[in-house]
Amino acid sequence: MLRELLRQVRAGEISIEYAEREIDALRIEEVGDFACLDLGRRMRCGIPEVVLAEGKLPSHLADIALAHARSSGRCLVSRISREQAVLLRERAQTGGFMVTCHDEARMVILSRGAEVRQSGGVVGIITAGTSDIRVAEEARVVAMEMGCRVCTAYDVGAAGIHRLFPALKKCHEAQVFVVAAGREGTLPAVVAGLVDRPVIGVPVSTGYGYMGHGRAALASMLQSCSVLAVVNIDAGFTAGAYAAQIANLVVGQ
Amino acid sequence: MLRELLRQVRAGEISIEYAEREIDALRIEEVGDFACLDLGRRMRCGIPEVVLAEGKLPSHLADIALAHARSSGRCLVSRISREQAVLLRERAQTGGFMVTCHDEARMVILSRGAEVRQSGGVVGIITAGTSDIRVAEEARVVAMEMGCRVCTAYDVGAAGIHRLFPALKKCHEAQVFVVAAGREGTLPAVVAGLVDRPVIGVPVSTGYGYMGHGRAALASMLQSCSVLAVVNIDAGFTAGAYAAQIANLVVGQ
Amino acid sequence: MLRELLRQVRAGEISIEYAEREIDALRIEEVGDFACLDLGRRMRCGIPEVVLAEGKLPSHLADIALAHARSSGRCLVSRISREQAVLLRERAQTGGFMVTCHDEARMVILSRGAEVRQSGGVVGIITAGTSDIRVAEEARVVAMEMGCRVCTAYDVGAAGIHRLFPALKKCHEAQVFVVAAGREGTLPAVVAGLVDRPVIGVPVSTGYGYMGHGRAALASMLQSCSVLAVVNIDAGFTAGAYAAQIANLVVGQ
Amino acid sequence: MLRELLRQVRAGEISIEYAEREIDALRIEEVGDFACLDLGRRMRCGIPEVVLAEGKLPSHLADIALAHARSSGRCLVSRISREQAVLLRERAQTGGFMVTCHDEARMVILSRGAEVRQSGGVVGIITAGTSDIRVAEEARVVAMEMGCRVCTAYDVGAAGIHRLFPALKKCHEAQVFVVAAGREGTLPAVVAGLVDRPVIGVPVSTGYGYMGHGRAALASMLQSCSVLAVVNIDAGFTAGAYAAQIANLVVGQ
Amino acid sequence: MLRELLRQVRAGEISIEYAEREIDALRIEEVGDFACLDLGRRMRCGIPEVVLAEGKLPSHLADIALAHARSSGRCLVSRISREQAVLLRERAQTGGFMVTCHDEARMVILSRGAEVRQSGGVVGIITAGTSDIRVAEEARVVAMEMGCRVCTAYDVGAAGIHRLFPALKKCHEAQVFVVAAGREGTLPAVVAGLVDRPVIGVPVSTGYGYMGHGRAALASMLQSCSVLAVVNIDAGFTAGAYAAQIANLVVGQ
Amino acid sequence: MLRELLRQVRAGEISIEYAEREIDALRIEEVGDFACLDLGRRMRCGIPEVVLAEGKLPSHLADIALAHARSSGRCLVSRISREQAVLLRERAQTGGFMVTCHDEARMVILSRGAEVRQSGGVVGIITAGTSDIRVAEEARVVAMEMGCRVCTAYDVGAAGIHRLFPALKKCHEAQVFVVAAGREGTLPAVVAGLVDRPVIGVPVSTGYGYMGHGRAALASMLQSCSVLAVVNIDAGFTAGAYAAQIANLVVGQ
Amino acid sequence: MLRELLRQVRAGEISIEYAEREIDALRIEEVGDFACLDLGRRMRCGIPEVVLAEGKLPSHLADIALAHARSSGRCLVSRISREQAVLLRERAQTGGFMVTCHDEARMVILSRGAEVRQSGGVVGIITAGTSDIRVAEEARVVAMEMGCRVCTAYDVGAAGIHRLFPALKKCHEAQVFVVAAGREGTLPAVVAGLVDRPVIGVPVSTGYGYMGHGRAALASMLQSCSVLAVVNIDAGFTAGAYAAQIANLVVGQ
Amino acid sequence: MLRELLRQVRAGEISIEYAEREIDALRIEEVGDFACLDLGRRMRCGIPEVVLAEGKLPSHLADIALAHARSSGRCLVSRISREQAVLLRERAQTGGFMVTCHDEARMVILSRGAEVRQSGGVVGIITAGTSDIRVAEEARVVAMEMGCRVCTAYDVGAAGIHRLFPALKKCHEAQVFVVAAGREGTLPAVVAGLVDRPVIGVPVSTGYGYMGHGRAALASMLQSCSVLAVVNIDAGFTAGAYAAQIANLVVGQ
Repeated sequence: MLRELLRQVRAGEISIEYAEREIDALRIEEVGDFACLDLGRRMRCGIPEVVLAEGKLPSHLADIALAHARSSGRCLVSRISREQAVLLRERAQTGGFMVTCHDEARMVILSRGAEVRQSGGVVGIITAGTSDIRVAEEARVVAMEMGCRVCTAYDVGAAGIHRLFPALKKCHEAQVFVVAAGREGTLPAVVAGLVDRPVIGVPVSTGYGYMGHGRAALASMLQSCSVLAVVNIDAGFTAGAYAAQIANLVVGQ
Repeated sequence: MLRELLRQVRAGEISIEYAEREIDALRIEEVGDFACLDLGRRMRCGIPEVVLAEGKLPSHLADIALAHARSSGRCLVSRISREQAVLLRERAQTGGFMVTCHDEARMVILSRGAEVRQSGGVVGIITAGTSDIRVAEEARVVAMEMGCRVCTAYDVGAAGIHRLFPALKKCHEAQVFVVAAGREGTLPAVVAGLVDRPVIGVPVSTGYGYMGHGRAALASMLQSCSVLAVVNIDAGFTAGAYAAQIANLVVGQ
Repeated sequence: MLRELLRQVRAGEISIEYAEREIDALRIEEVGDFACLDLGRRMRCGIPEVVLAEGKLPSHLADIALAHARSSGRCLVSRISREQAVLLRERAQTGGFMVTCHDEARMVILSRGAEVRQSGGVVGIITAGTSDIRVAEEARVVAMEMGCRVCTAYDVGAAGIHRLFPALKKCHEAQVFVVAAGREGTLPAVVAGLVDRPVIGVPVSTGYGYMGHGRAALASMLQSCSVLAVVNIDAGFTAGAYAAQIANLVVGQ
Repeated sequence: MLRELLRQVRAGEISIEYAEREIDALRIEEVGDFACLDLGRRMRCGIPEVVLAEGKLPSHLADIALAHARSSGRCLVSRISREQAVLLRERAQTGGFMVTCHDEARMVILSRGAEVRQSGGVVGIITAGTSDIRVAEEARVVAMEMGCRVCTAYDVGAAGIHRLFPALKKCHEAQVFVVAAGREGTLPAVVAGLVDRPVIGVPVSTGYGYMGHGRAALASMLQSCSVLAVVNIDAGFTAGAYAAQIANLVVGQ
Repeated sequence: MLRELLRQVRAGEISIEYAEREIDALRIEEVGDFACLDLGRRMRCGIPEVVLAEGKLPSHLADIALAHARSSGRCLVSRISREQAVLLRERAQTGGFMVTCHDEARMVILSRGAEVRQSGGVVGIITAGTSDIRVAEEARVVAMEMGCRVCTAYDVGAAGIHRLFPALKKCHEAQVFVVAAGREGTLPAVVAGLVDRPVIGVPVSTGYGYMGHGRAALASMLQSCSVLAVVNIDAGFTAGAYAAQIANLVVGQ
Repeated sequence: MLRELLRQVRAGEISIEYAEREIDALRIEEVGDFACLDLGRRMRCGIPEVVLAEGKLPSHLADIALAHARSSGRCLVSRISREQAVLLRERAQTGGFMVTCHDEARMVILSRGAEVRQSGGVVGIITAGTSDIRVAEEARVVAMEMGCRVCTAYDVGAAGIHRLFPALKKCHEAQVFVVAAGREGTLPAVVAGLVDRPVIGVPVSTGYGYMGHGRAALASMLQSCSVLAVVNIDAGFTAGAYAAQIANLVVGQ
Repeated sequence: MLRELLRQVRAGEISIEYAEREIDALRIEEVGDFACLDLGRRMRCGIPEVVLAEGKLPSHLADIALAHARSSGRCLVSRISREQAVLLRERAQTGGFMVTCHDEARMVILSRGAEVRQSGGVVGIITAGTSDIRVAEEARVVAMEMGCRVCTAYDVGAAGIHRLFPALKKCHEAQVFVVAAGREGTLPAVVAGLVDRPVIGVPVSTGYGYMGHGRAALASMLQSCSVLAVVNIDAGFTAGAYAAQIANLVVGQ
Repeated sequence: MLRELLRQVRAGEISIEYAEREIDALRIEEVGDFACLDLGRRMRCGIPEVVLAEGKLPSHLADIALAHARSSGRCLVSRISREQAVLLRERAQTGGFMVTCHDEARMVILSRGAEVRQSGGVVGIITAGTSDIRVAEEARVVAMEMGCRVCTAYDVGAAGIHRLFPALKKCHEAQVFVVAAGREGTLPAVVAGLVDRPVIGVPVSTGYGYMGHGRAALASMLQSCSVLAVVNIDAGFTAGAYAAQIANLVVGQ
């Protein structure tokens, strides 16, 4: 459009003043475009947009998720309830979308059926106990959605390290680890002390009494002498996306 | 004294009414005695009375400590400053007491020179880092004062467990363990998972930032899946006395 | 297996290089065995493995508990709900296990019917109020599971000490005390001031308002001048196991 | 002045309109007076105004205290430092005031020499430890300033109650008790359980670690099952004034 | 009984040794009696024993409350739910007790029908808002149970003081005030600044967001410059009992 | 009335003494009036009185709201539940009031049908996410009730600023901004950095884990380097009223 | 520059392709300019940039402040220490700047001597106590720097409102109020209940014990029923700038 | 050694039983070796061991640091004071080590003069303000020590993003970003929203009042919607090491 304007200036079809105003207007539009392009921010970072289901009416959620799915061909919904999922599945299938449910992760994926392109990145996900699995699963689904292969070793045990060695062996191809743990939350630091890969600690909201609900776990991960980065309590999505970002970077994606 | 009274009653030397009043008085005195005996409560539990130096003027401290030493032949002073120690030593020596200084423990013991009778109890004291030693030393001095032998393994490291095995071997005779750790404070739980003896966790006020100053350590010890009991942050005295109480109980003291 | 290898080396049946590789492999397996032996960690410490029912689906819980029961002949389930207990009982009885329910402790024990061997250890359990009993019961069941005899004195009263003396008398054989108290939680310190045995304080999540839900109790136990060790709020299991560990140690178990 | 106005109205010396305006003005002044009388609020409640020295420059403090002393004949200064006290004493003596220093209470009283009139009220002040005395002394000085007689029993001990009985006996005339305690702060509840007089608990900022600096004491006093009212941590002034208010009320002052 | 023993000693009917043992036994019983008298502690302080219904099964509650009512002729039950109240009423009426329900206070009183003897004490109870009434009512019922007359002025408003003056006028006979307030909780301090009687502040668990649920109210009452004593959040019982204790003391009860 | 009194004085119809007493009485009434006028405080500040529905029985709420509506012609009810709204609507319509429901704001307005007079003030309300809308709507309804026009731009997004520029453009007439944001709550500071109008930050109780439920948002708004004022978490009413107060002030209302 | 480009296009001096590239480059520069203009953000909002002295070396501070002063003719330095001020003054005077020190506000202003242009805005600043003055002074200096006239009424008293009325009268021209208060921090709410102008509450870090250091004040301001906005504890700068922003807006600046 | 044993077995020089015992012993040594190798854990992860100077006596620190330097040729000392540095430098130079001081990072490096081998990894470090630089510098030194090239952009500004774009451009080669920010701590989330590389947020202990000292920054980073990992407040070492670990992984180191 700028070129056409310049052509008209050259041809004397429009005045210089008029062209100046038009170009100014264009610039303002560019600012708009800049903003719009920014809409693609998360996509550009290789991180899928996620719709948080928590606190949304089932019908609202379905509207929002379908709008996302229509515009980008794919939509991740997190922390979805059974009731929300029922309506979403129905609405999505009517709308011609494939629906994949990850119950333990409390996630649903709408897609046009296309497989996620494999990036070659490998993420290892380890949990201390069984209660940490729901958070780990959220991380797993996101990492897979970002093209990574995921190796998991759940319920490795916080107290004894005997189950940790085979777990690490099982995940030996991982370029990065997500380690989820509640209560005193020491497993991430232990793993970080044993592997030469980045470890992301996820405190899980288990444990009661003093500093329960994941706060002791968050505290011990932040205070740890090991080299370890941390996300918020129960933040499986962030952990999974962060890990996949690293893994994809390592394999040159 | 009651027997003498009864004798006098029998002998008719005193009236029944008089005896009744006297015995009532005796009972009241007994209550007093009961109270007084209660003065010996800590001693009776095998735990020495300790004078907390913190916040006391040097001269006041010296007065109090010497009074204790005079009445019971022995006096433990804890959290003593250099300035307080100088005056106390001088005054105590003038008063004929032997003065033993434990600098790292910030403790001073006044005594008439008698050795503490060995109970046969053995306490193991382990620390994660070098900053935990001052707290461990407080525990050590108290446990020794209670007749126990103490094996120590300091600076075992929180991150790796490689220095822990020789430490445990070194302390294999211990009937009970005191484990001091700051920052994320995971060592006590690790030890409790490896030994079949009671473990007392002592959080140490190290670490900065979120839940620093021993609070993360306290939290992770309380939240731990291991079977572990805990004392307050930096409470070396309590940990040492508790451990010695158990050890002495085990050896039948 | 090593001996056979060595025999073959001697016999020239295998090459030295081959034997070296095999022995290396063996060592790695040993590491595995070491790990596996470690599986017996808790058992080795005399502390039974417990399955935390809280947050598990009834069918999952039943699977896990039965697997434990099958492998070790016995299984403790804690914090079990009525709904979980109904299914567990049914499944366990079908599976030929005896089921013992401790309603107030919210615990269920699966066994092959064998009695727990008596260790000779005696644990005293005292509670300040009636709301503390559920936590005390959890401690009691665990201590009994570890072979101890338990004397209990519930609802001794925090405010007045008049009910404490007969309670202590009743528990005079105890080698160690568990004292559970909510609200201001002062009873454990009072008991610790009166007996010459180790006392384990258990804060109970009662009390409302400022520092309610057991936090004031935890705070006052940690701040106490008495020699006292503490476990997490409502941590009946840990308190009971810790007490039994001490009692069994004292009686030479 | 109103009467004079009305006289002038009657005498026809001023117009009704003028009188109306004047009376309106008077009312506004009355509002002022109301305000001014309100200045006497604290005095009216029988509670002396106190000047908090903390954070004031010595010369500013002296100005303010002398202004108070000049207007009301008497002035209480609290939390005064040595440096502030030196200048205040000098300035006050120059200004013709008698200066009474209460070192442990960190208070100074300026007066014209008149004795405080005895109200007949009796306040009992008890402390658990020696570190609580500075707070207790602040309470004592205020209560005496309000005309009460004060019986004190300091360092009664938190752990054992044996020193409490003679203390209570010593204070048997008290109509109300102030009980100061740090660390776990249980003494006020114990006293409240033994006497049939109102007890005011004052948490003292001692104790370290979890909930140290008087917060555990505050928590346990608020959570206590005993009938007990509480003031802020270290609030000796408030406790003393509140107690004296009750005592004076009881004796009809 | 002692006299009889002494008589037998005199008469030579029993040996001195036997008498000594008997008198020792007597002393021990005395200790028991001392304890037993202590059972009357709360009663002796003029404060009725209360049964906290919260968290008790309806049938357990009924058992406990009736036991209390039978032994002392009267029983207060607090924080009772509708379901608990239904059963209690039924059981109590069957047992021949009169049942008085105070719905807003969530209290039930069992009695033999006797009126509480009027002490002559007068307690003023003021609330800032309507949400504070349930706590105020708890205080009112307790104070009346202790023989006091209660004047109430509810919903006086925290923001404006215009409704406070008639409220204070209405309560001019009160010897002591209970002032309940939630959110920012400033009313108790305002009242304490206007009356020359002791004021007890009760923070009420209203308000959301930062320091909601009564914590801001507690904080502002403790920090207040006014002379004011405070009880725990929602502690209507304690406030009412403390106020009645003061009022009864003032009228010489 | 004063004038009439003065006339009577002049006319000699009443004595000066009598007039004096009457004028004194008048003054006391004035104090009453002063108080009464104070009743109009909120109205006088241009801020409508609001009835908080939360925690009130539907019938009580209806009584209170109708009383307000009858006395001032209009009544705002906030945080109303569906059940409360049903009864209120019915009762209000029977009583001849028009009922306007704002569902998302959880507010109901009773009125005699009169439109709110437009002040000319304009308030801009921006939210970061969809979960913030309920709080924003509360602010919007209040601001409109105070005569302001409100421009809203909801769900502008916290992470990217691309949707913020059109939002600000849309609200360019606003004299003041309310910006609601949960989780990390950074939007208000961003807006305050871009506009030359006062910005009021409202933290919204979203976000889980560490400092969730709006506390992180409150913290980051208070810590912000931008010039920004803040209200309590979820305090839509206060934010809206504060904004309208400023807007109305700017347009000279 | 664009116009020149267009002229060259018209004149055929440059190719269209070249012009397109140049204009693209220009746009990128514009983005730069946009950024640079953004440098003027604070100025544009009418809020002066401030240099926080706290934690800076005296020489660093002087460098930074002089750079600011040179570029914008004026520089505000806040939280400056005596030592920092001495060097800054010396360096600034050497550099030809006028130096104005506001000791109590701990602020220094460097300028070329030009007076701040009066905006006509009027800000009222009120403090509860004398300890709040340092914060109020910080607000005052900023508001004056933004062209406002400031009326102050310091030490109005939190407990009694008698000194508040003349204070409000004195500030009757203010379009907005800053009210600073520590401890329980109730004054801002009281003022907000009495004036029909926006009130900004500033909690001041006074008060000790539970929720001391301004936290109780912050809590009670946020919980207040009055319509009130709040800034961070001790945030005098923000309060002053926010108030001046409103005042200047009202007077059309 | 095993091979030699096997050779001897083959040669019949030793018995099979003897060999068995020797190999068992070897295995035990292996366990020791495993432990010893574990000593190299941090090194193996590519992360240098660091000696925390804080709280160590200058002479102790020098001993420890020199021991490290001697055993591994290189030693990093962090959080070193001026006094400690003076002695360390002297002792290290005497010992033949090269000493590199990083004053702002408060770090000292002892080495034998060898340059760190460049890994090819590039780390971008950005700070919001000047107070964040000390933490950023700690990260920088560590990352360089791990062979990375570091691009820094300090004092980018939290409020405006205008300085951020050139900063990001400057760091366009970075494979990973460390972003340090205090107060409200929003910069890391903003950067994470703009780049497609992993971002590590470091809260810095600046800011006063509510949630000051880095806690608000930590909270807003953990609550952020951006994909972001976090380390403890002021944990520059961890952030730098974690970033270098990622960068080195990306470049295949």
